[in-house]
Amino acid sequence: MAGKPSEFALIAKYFAPLASDPGALALTDDTCLLEHYAGSDLVVTTDALIEGVHFLSEDPPNCIACKALRTNLSDLAAKGATPAGYLLALALPGKIDTAFLEAFARGLGEDQKRYGLSLLGGDTTATPGPLTLAITALGRVPAGGMIRRSGARPGDGVYVSGTIGDAGAGLALLQCGQAAGRDADFLIGRYRLPQPRLELGTALRGVASAALDVSDGLMADLGHLAEVSQVRIVVEAARIPRSAALQALQGNSPEAMVRAATAGDDYEIAFTAPSEAAVLEAGKAGGVAVTRIGRVEAGQGIALLASDGREIPLIKAGYSHF
Amino acid sequence: MAGKPSEFALIAKYFAPLASDPGALALTDDTCLLEHYAGSDLVVTTDALIEGVHFLSEDPPNCIACKALRTNLSDLAAKGATPAGYLLALALPGKIDTAFLEAFARGLGEDQKRYGLSLLGGDTTATPGPLTLAITALGRVPAGGMIRRSGARPGDGVYVSGTIGDAGAGLALLQCGQAAGRDADFLIGRYRLPQPRLELGTALRGVASAALDVSDGLMADLGHLAEVSQVRIVVEAARIPRSAALQALQGNSPEAMVRAATAGDDYEIAFTAPSEAAVLEAGKAGGVAVTRIGRVEAGQGIALLASDGREIPLIKAGYSHF
Repeated sequence: MAGKPSEFALIAKYFAPLASDPGALALTDDTCLLEHYAGSDLVVTTDALIEGVHFLSEDPPNCIACKALRTNLSDLAAKGATPAGYLLALALPGKIDTAFLEAFARGLGEDQKRYGLSLLGGDTTATPGPLTLAITALGRVPAGGMIRRSGARPGDGVYVSGTIGDAGAGLALLQCGQAAGRDADFLIGRYRLPQPRLELGTALRGVASAALDVSDGLMADLGHLAEVSQVRIVVEAARIPRSAALQALQGNSPEAMVRAATAGDDYEIAFTAPSEAAVLEAGKAGGVAVTRIGRVEAGQGIALLASDGREIPLIKAGYSHF
Repeated sequence: MAGKPSEFALIAKYFAPLASDPGALALTDDTCLLEHYAGSDLVVTTDALIEGVHFLSEDPPNCIACKALRTNLSDLAAKGATPAGYLLALALPGKIDTAFLEAFARGLGEDQKRYGLSLLGGDTTATPGPLTLAITALGRVPAGGMIRRSGARPGDGVYVSGTIGDAGAGLALLQCGQAAGRDADFLIGRYRLPQPRLELGTALRGVASAALDVSDGLMADLGHLAEVSQVRIVVEAARIPRSAALQALQGNSPEAMVRAATAGDDYEIAFTAPSEAAVLEAGKAGGVAVTRIGRVEAGQGIALLASDGREIPLIKAGYSHF
């Protein structure tokens, strides 16, 4: 189309410079190549992000790129994996211009340096619909060392990294147009730029009995873990770590705690482990606070307990895309 | 949303049954797991298909599913890889109903049996835009055995599998509403259901010096191969294999031959090789006709020659998505 770069020119200009790994074959082949690594398994995840669903049209392009990459890296982190690279399938609406693409590619480039990985392959096409990105991230774990969702056992403690509820509050601030002040900046930053807990993830190998990343909402995601592990998970609401900014904004009512526990987009690691001492060591190695929020019991389902021990009824445990 | 299955119900009903490989972890984890295979490399490719761009809204859902999977398998085939599995990121518009999903999943299930692979993971979300699928396919090749685009050398022959131009003619028939008759059925079938040449691909290991799959158009794709291999590729138009159905529809004029050589969606393997005898053996093992269409020379670029040896000027060598 006149005035538009061709698909190949676009790949050459913006994406080939991101293909730093030799296995990316400079994005000039049908596939990328991952050489055999003795003693390691490969873990793979894919996530699609859609304009208006997973990010806002007015979000900065570099943040959109970084969020797409980091949500995938967060999945790798929760499995104890080290990132090996990623593939990007990009469907671009007509309104996307070179300024957008430049910022988008710059965001990816900065995160590649930050997390030590390379673009390995991709696909770029035009769409009559909203901007849609599908990233597939590949990571390596020592053979047999992937931390699964299925290993939680009665008696294990339940833990979560970082703070919970920030991103949900940041999104709400953006949606109601009240995005001013230092606390708001912090919360919106937590929505726009997840921090994949890669160092914690690798430190949790052999320590966590089960883990996942919190994306749909803490209680919803722990519900998934409980279901796959065939156990019951009990969380004490007052123990859920909430940032100072979130507490300043929402207070400390039971409702505020439920809101944090059911908001999405946290991208922290929730996990279970038999040894609290080992968890504390892993938290130190991982460079992020780790908080014990509950316990694993025999049974099924999840429960959120108030300070008096009563169960708090949850209307919804988290976010569903439908 | 009322009356809609939740994301999890949808995955459990339609997609979990496709996750036959243990490494898919029944689609209940953050990632899938590919165990280490001694002596093999992994090749990975991703392709997005968008309604109205890569398939038509009225295409049967099972064909859409199969085409999405097969275009990725065709990339693996061209690299000499054996499919290991695939991940599916699916963005569903509101109009998609259970009848669509059932047919879509049935198509995938049938192709999984046909090609011996499993769904390994995925992501399902709602979109306000057109139906968008991104498939990431993973395959294995013996270590160091991937057939790249970069290995063509002067003196090699240039070959292509199957017949060229059918899918482009099938799409044109659909677009002009003249889709009646046995020849039309054949050509439309070639557009809707590519045949990834997996057996040929594995047979070409150690035989082909370079290969790719023909998706943008034969001349365009050979142009990519020539560029990456830093050689010149010369194709004789009269040698390009065209099906009886295509010849019946379009005749044998030079224009018809150029149209075939520049149509897209063929999903055949174009390759170069030093030994014609070895190619013929590989073609037998691959169960598909292989035709020598030209030669590799020193230099750069591509040329399409008429029967009298004159170069046929190409206005466009193939399809660009922009």
